[in-house]
Amino acid sequence: MQLGDFQQLIRGMYHEKDVARGIDGTFMWLMEEVGELAAALREGTLEEQRGEFADVLAWLTTIANVAGVDLTEAIQEKYGSGCPGCGRMACDCDDAEKP
Amino acid sequence: MQLGDFQQLIRGMYHEKDVARGIDGTFMWLMEEVGELAAALREGTLEEQRGEFADVLAWLTTIANVAGVDLTEAIQEKYGSGCPGCGRMACDCDDAEKP
Repeated sequence: MQLGDFQQLIRGMYHEKDVARGIDGTFMWLMEEVGELAAALREGTLEEQRGEFADVLAWLTTIANVAGVDLTEAIQEKYGSGCPGCGRMACDCDDAEKP
Repeated sequence: MQLGDFQQLIRGMYHEKDVARGIDGTFMWLMEEVGELAAALREGTLEEQRGEFADVLAWLTTIANVAGVDLTEAIQEKYGSGCPGCGRMACDCDDAEKP
């Protein structure tokens, strides 16, 4: 699936509600999902983990929609030509450094 | 960009480090990036916001790689045929409910 198509799918599904709720309120939902992902990673099944990854990605995408950020452009710009730290396609940044 | 291609790109860039660090340590980096995204949404430029969205997506993806979760399958399964709450392509869940 194209990331851009997913962003459009989520826009069609939730944009009206997202805009009404605003970024702050929508961010709270993202945080709740991040907590659920942490719990699933600690003690969930792979199926539960898959669901929580999907939810975090959906809430991140929905906030990007409200903020007017195209996620495809964002990742291409930052990661498309290599690690933002060292510039290589296989990162060789020092382990203590990001990332 | 295909989401699967991005997941492969991030795998090639960081997988060895991610596996060495493990899910717990990698999750800490995700949290740091989520904090930076919150700051950028509050007072950053659109360009800064774009960079932070990319970083959160990259760290989420890298954790999915360590956990063995295919993000494309995950979102298709959960959102591909409609809102997980109400089943519609344009969500009509009650506003008080998720999502």
